[in-house]
Amino acid sequence: MGLLYAPRMSTVPKSFIREILKVTENPNVISFAGGLPNPRFFPVEAIARAASDVLTEAGASALQYSTTEGYPPLREYIAQRYRRKKGLTVSADEILITNGSQQGLDLLGKVFIGRGDAVAIERPAYLGAIQAFSVYEPQFHAAPLLEDGVDVDRLKDVLGKHPVKLFHTVINFQNPSGITYSPSKREELARLFVQYNAVVVEDDPYGELRFMGAAPSSMRSRLNGRAVLLGSFSKTIAPGLRLGWICAEREIMDKFVVAKQASDLHSNSLCQRIVHQYLQSNDVDRHISTIIAAYKKQRDTMVAAIEECFPAEVRFTRPEGGMFLWVTLPERLSALKLFEHAIRENVAFVPGSPFFVDGGGVNCMRLNFSNADQDKIEEGIRRLGRIMKDLLTAR
Amino acid sequence: MGLLYAPRMSTVPKSFIREILKVTENPNVISFAGGLPNPRFFPVEAIARAASDVLTEAGASALQYSTTEGYPPLREYIAQRYRRKKGLTVSADEILITNGSQQGLDLLGKVFIGRGDAVAIERPAYLGAIQAFSVYEPQFHAAPLLEDGVDVDRLKDVLGKHPVKLFHTVINFQNPSGITYSPSKREELARLFVQYNAVVVEDDPYGELRFMGAAPSSMRSRLNGRAVLLGSFSKTIAPGLRLGWICAEREIMDKFVVAKQASDLHSNSLCQRIVHQYLQSNDVDRHISTIIAAYKKQRDTMVAAIEECFPAEVRFTRPEGGMFLWVTLPERLSALKLFEHAIRENVAFVPGSPFFVDGGGVNCMRLNFSNADQDKIEEGIRRLGRIMKDLLTAR
Repeated sequence: MGLLYAPRMSTVPKSFIREILKVTENPNVISFAGGLPNPRFFPVEAIARAASDVLTEAGASALQYSTTEGYPPLREYIAQRYRRKKGLTVSADEILITNGSQQGLDLLGKVFIGRGDAVAIERPAYLGAIQAFSVYEPQFHAAPLLEDGVDVDRLKDVLGKHPVKLFHTVINFQNPSGITYSPSKREELARLFVQYNAVVVEDDPYGELRFMGAAPSSMRSRLNGRAVLLGSFSKTIAPGLRLGWICAEREIMDKFVVAKQASDLHSNSLCQRIVHQYLQSNDVDRHISTIIAAYKKQRDTMVAAIEECFPAEVRFTRPEGGMFLWVTLPERLSALKLFEHAIRENVAFVPGSPFFVDGGGVNCMRLNFSNADQDKIEEGIRRLGRIMKDLLTAR
Repeated sequence: MGLLYAPRMSTVPKSFIREILKVTENPNVISFAGGLPNPRFFPVEAIARAASDVLTEAGASALQYSTTEGYPPLREYIAQRYRRKKGLTVSADEILITNGSQQGLDLLGKVFIGRGDAVAIERPAYLGAIQAFSVYEPQFHAAPLLEDGVDVDRLKDVLGKHPVKLFHTVINFQNPSGITYSPSKREELARLFVQYNAVVVEDDPYGELRFMGAAPSSMRSRLNGRAVLLGSFSKTIAPGLRLGWICAEREIMDKFVVAKQASDLHSNSLCQRIVHQYLQSNDVDRHISTIIAAYKKQRDTMVAAIEECFPAEVRFTRPEGGMFLWVTLPERLSALKLFEHAIRENVAFVPGSPFFVDGGGVNCMRLNFSNADQDKIEEGIRRLGRIMKDLLTAR
């Protein structure tokens, strides 16, 4: 007699990326596969000082059970930063601290998605969102991404045909494509969504990592309560602390709090205080600008190497920030086949198909540029270019 | 237009206890309401040393993304402790680190419970389990607890009538009742479950806090893969670290890993290493015996005060460990009414009804003895006894 699992377990995709990452643990592999921030910029010493300060000053109360919503001064900091950096009217009670923004996605699923409910996503979509939402057994409807954001006409078709509950977008430097929604695209999106009873999930883990230009304003400023923001300290401080947040208006927040309580009571108290202490005692904007300068250089190196080494018919995005760019191969070249050859030459990336819920992406791939130094980037791209050319001429 | 939430959101009970806890934030209130371990025993300095050691030695890798399953040396420690303390054959790959054992409950719900599935629980049941499972919309069937564990005949009726997926038990020093399953009850339970295709969830956050007698063996040693164990560092080290674990055989573990990945990728890396470092550098058994000695004294004080001050017709449990005891008032006295009067005299406890999914418990109450010193316990129980007598004679 085999155990009977819930039906949802057959619908949740196992992360193909995590499987790939196992292959890339070999230190000889040049990996563009991960989505790891560069550990060179983790503020290890400052975090150690913050930990020591917190345990000295707060003592046992830093280790006790605490409120589901999160550590109040940290929530206040996040709200203030939204006000200061984005001009958003957000108060601390509209912030819930989560275990990374991945948990924000899980809580969105819990709160909104009933079995069979329509959920609109991008095409390609963030894999973590597909996984988190799949648990709640939605019907996914994917609208294609253009260079400046989602194809609004196609998204409108989806909204017209299906009672969509959520539209999930990684609005800045999207994972996997690297694209960013333009101001006019955001305006169009807002005009579309005021007509529908759906929530726009503005998933923004990379927004602070902007290399150039001004940041367009948030969907929250256009849609108010119909926009739910997800944020994270994973890319600006460190991911191992597992601290992200949901920003939502109070009515929705009440539901998130119930769902969070049922999920794990509250997020790690000690690390919430450590991060808050770190933010108080350090110049985080300067820290972020150091990360930005390094990632921009790495992106520039990767773009230049691609321009030099990839066949001319290969297209790719030039992200204004973040950690990824997206490569579209000629249709006759499968990224999975390229992967098989590349891994033999110790280069890894993520083939495109897992980012598509409806097939497609077979000739696409995601390249990460945040976590490899410049020599490795040049060498890895050179190898990939050579393999592409070999495979294209062999056919 | 109001937003449309998933149907499950109307079925998840908001924690009545957390609402009560807000009342008890007043420092003048003598609270027997919480479920808090006593912060006097949090090893603040040892945790500070461990944090410093981890950040010095592991550096950035303590702050990077890590594996879903958890920090391997910590998983190995837990498996070894099961082998050493309980004689269980458990390997590290049968351990998954969770955000407190509350997340273990959520993952059990995700993996096993489809809408309408039958789930058996104790009567009274652990409130956190009711909340976590409710998200997945099961049909609950509660079997009454006797002094030595669940009423197996009644549980057998439930299993005979309904295709039960899970039976959830807090097997040692149950929350809320304080009772512990006897060896013969465990044997009966094992004989019953080998006949059914259901999982016994052995939720054991308090097992290490045994004041007297020998620990009966785990259901895992009797049911192997049909038992899933939940454990936690919250009661032995500190709850704010949010670290617990699931122990399950590999086939089920694969499902838990997928569910955990979708939920929040992995648990806090830094705190996993800190706890492991703490366990390596400190005598945790001695630390636990300090907690046990204190809690036992507090329990003894509470039991003696109850014997002296409560009306003779009031019944109560005398737990062999843990943090709670359970009081049954005469049927004509409602615990909610008692609560209203008690809170006016600055004494708080948790009335029994929230622990029952099918009504009942109106004349029951849970008293926590881990988090009040002896004077407060004596004074609080004295006040409660007086109010009980007043209410009983007023009628």
